[in-house]
Amino acid sequence: MKPHDLPPTSQWTLARRAERMNPSVLREILKVTERPGIISFAGGLPSPRTFPVDAFAQACEQVLRSDGPGALQYAASEGYRPLREMVARLLPWQVDPDQVLITTGSQQGLDLVAKVLLDEGSRVLVETPTYLGALQAFAPMEPQAVGIASDAEGIDVADLARQRAGARFLYVLPNFQNPTGRTMSEARRQALVQTARELALPIVEDNPYGDLWFDMPPPASLASRHPEGTIYLGSFSKVLAPGLRLGYLVAPSAVFPKLLQAKQAADLHSPSFNQRMVAEVLRDGFLDRHVPTIRALYKAQRDAMLAALAREMQGLDVQWNAPEGGMFLWARLPAGLDAVRLLPQAVERGVAFVPGAAFYAGEADTRTLRLSFVTASVEEIDRGMAALAATLRAALAAART
Amino acid sequence: MKPHDLPPTSQWTLARRAERMNPSVLREILKVTERPGIISFAGGLPSPRTFPVDAFAQACEQVLRSDGPGALQYAASEGYRPLREMVARLLPWQVDPDQVLITTGSQQGLDLVAKVLLDEGSRVLVETPTYLGALQAFAPMEPQAVGIASDAEGIDVADLARQRAGARFLYVLPNFQNPTGRTMSEARRQALVQTARELALPIVEDNPYGDLWFDMPPPASLASRHPEGTIYLGSFSKVLAPGLRLGYLVAPSAVFPKLLQAKQAADLHSPSFNQRMVAEVLRDGFLDRHVPTIRALYKAQRDAMLAALAREMQGLDVQWNAPEGGMFLWARLPAGLDAVRLLPQAVERGVAFVPGAAFYAGEADTRTLRLSFVTASVEEIDRGMAALAATLRAALAAART
Repeated sequence: MKPHDLPPTSQWTLARRAERMNPSVLREILKVTERPGIISFAGGLPSPRTFPVDAFAQACEQVLRSDGPGALQYAASEGYRPLREMVARLLPWQVDPDQVLITTGSQQGLDLVAKVLLDEGSRVLVETPTYLGALQAFAPMEPQAVGIASDAEGIDVADLARQRAGARFLYVLPNFQNPTGRTMSEARRQALVQTARELALPIVEDNPYGDLWFDMPPPASLASRHPEGTIYLGSFSKVLAPGLRLGYLVAPSAVFPKLLQAKQAADLHSPSFNQRMVAEVLRDGFLDRHVPTIRALYKAQRDAMLAALAREMQGLDVQWNAPEGGMFLWARLPAGLDAVRLLPQAVERGVAFVPGAAFYAGEADTRTLRLSFVTASVEEIDRGMAALAATLRAALAAART
Repeated sequence: MKPHDLPPTSQWTLARRAERMNPSVLREILKVTERPGIISFAGGLPSPRTFPVDAFAQACEQVLRSDGPGALQYAASEGYRPLREMVARLLPWQVDPDQVLITTGSQQGLDLVAKVLLDEGSRVLVETPTYLGALQAFAPMEPQAVGIASDAEGIDVADLARQRAGARFLYVLPNFQNPTGRTMSEARRQALVQTARELALPIVEDNPYGDLWFDMPPPASLASRHPEGTIYLGSFSKVLAPGLRLGYLVAPSAVFPKLLQAKQAADLHSPSFNQRMVAEVLRDGFLDRHVPTIRALYKAQRDAMLAALAREMQGLDVQWNAPEGGMFLWARLPAGLDAVRLLPQAVERGVAFVPGAAFYAGEADTRTLRLSFVTASVEEIDRGMAALAATLRAALAAART
């Protein structure tokens, strides 16, 4: 074969989808904001104070002592059966363990859903704004993400009906949403499920934060109301610890086998050792004792941030919400300010946040920002919010001149 | 919106790629062969006797005691820096830790490679036969897998040149291959790398078994000879334990950033806890002491299987090879027999294997079978091989009548 017979090609030819894969805006921002001395409201990290280190240490020892070789061997792609049974029991509706697939974090659930349900150009409907990590997980399958109009109660079902044609599913995060912290109301859930049934529109329901409620649990999940039409994604990252990378999905029989095959091709199975550790920790109702301590901590943190906002933002035309759980609060700057442009000025004054623009599938509201209330201490929240208010005042003064 | 405006659609519309995703033939076979009392040469499981349970128990305790919250928190998508540095040091050529990406088993490396390099219809060149798990990992990206002629020394470079046009990469497993156990010779490696350079054909080199050599190490890796043109996949599954699901890839800068972005979208990062455990176990040259014990065990097992084959298959026109490492041996039945049809008869007599047909991208040699020598004990190998020979004799007798 003569070299000139070859097609003109560089050594590495990337798949077309690689163009859609870009460094996470969020990760790039976080790098800047992780400089020492910066008070960060930007990260999405659970408070490490909530990680049950001692329970994990005991579970490790127990798992290795009782069946070390079994815990360290290859295992079924579906997941460790006792853990699948525990997940089914923990969920407050009728779930068959055979419907539960253990995933390497709920992020992998999004990857599997995209592989099984999205073709190039498929429409996927998302909230406005929506979880950035979902957009990133879907992107390699080259879909068209369409933002559905949303308000403080959640998705606008009339707009959903208008946008339904050809959509493969609606992706929705109903409880203490990332990034807005908002919760879909009971009325909206009823309307959404009714509309989804009428439109034969599948739902992918992501629920990493649902257990982190402050005063009362959120309304029942969409999956519990419409199990045959919903893939439900859950996670142990926020109620135990993210470093084990364990989540799960619950899927109806119409799609479970394909999700399982995609799982097997993706990483064979999630770590068997970690699955047994979590199953060991969860025995005897551990979450019933542990999760209330996380709720109490995060509620106090939210209260501190709300108080700091009310105190520091006086006289500034800043809006914010009061999430009823989770880790994030959503704010909106006065007219004329842009959160992306404000960020370096805030970092200069020692405080960081995530501009909201990254979370929109369509046109972004550039005045929005996401504030995490769980990473910084109460004292840091106070100082950080004062610094943010000073940044705003300076930017507004500069805008006026 | 009126229902009749909707396209006629069932509730769940699967992606086109879902048609390519099928239950693993291998897993289905393994289910049959895992019946109690069956001596299995079918599985691909490392011997659990080789898992360093005590070292893991100490590492767990150490990791949680020294920085439990850090080990349980979200972490960088690239992987735990000290582990990336250890991988770079362990590899016997010049590797920058920045080129190392920690993956959730090397199976995930295959998934990431497929996402970044394969479009629908892309040609991907593979050995004949090849690792089934790679074909499964590539399938969701809808490529065309093309089997390159191969012999006992590895890939036929002349056929490679003939098939190169439009191929995105060559996937090759040079050491103690799964399924054949064969090792690519030094001469063939030189010829392959030269051809790959001339053709500007990228290589994906999979090396899960390379450390499991019996008498002498295999020739140097392809990546060490051609680092800019090779993505190298490694694994801790065979030298430590598969249940932690940790592997790694080494990629040149032309593709590393996209692989990293694909990794982030796939599962954010591999379990930080597991990465720290392995880094802890690997300190102080653990593998230098541990891996020789695996080699000695597997060599004795291979010898037992070779002796059993020589003894039991006398007078039968069965061929087999003598792998110089790894876990598998490849055999070929007498003319007129088909391994798929033989399997149920073998299971009836209490012994199981994997028919070779599943491992071919193109036309299969239906007389081939894969025999694992690491799972069964020596006594079981003797009994199992006698049962297999009896199965063959009965099948041949039936074929003659």
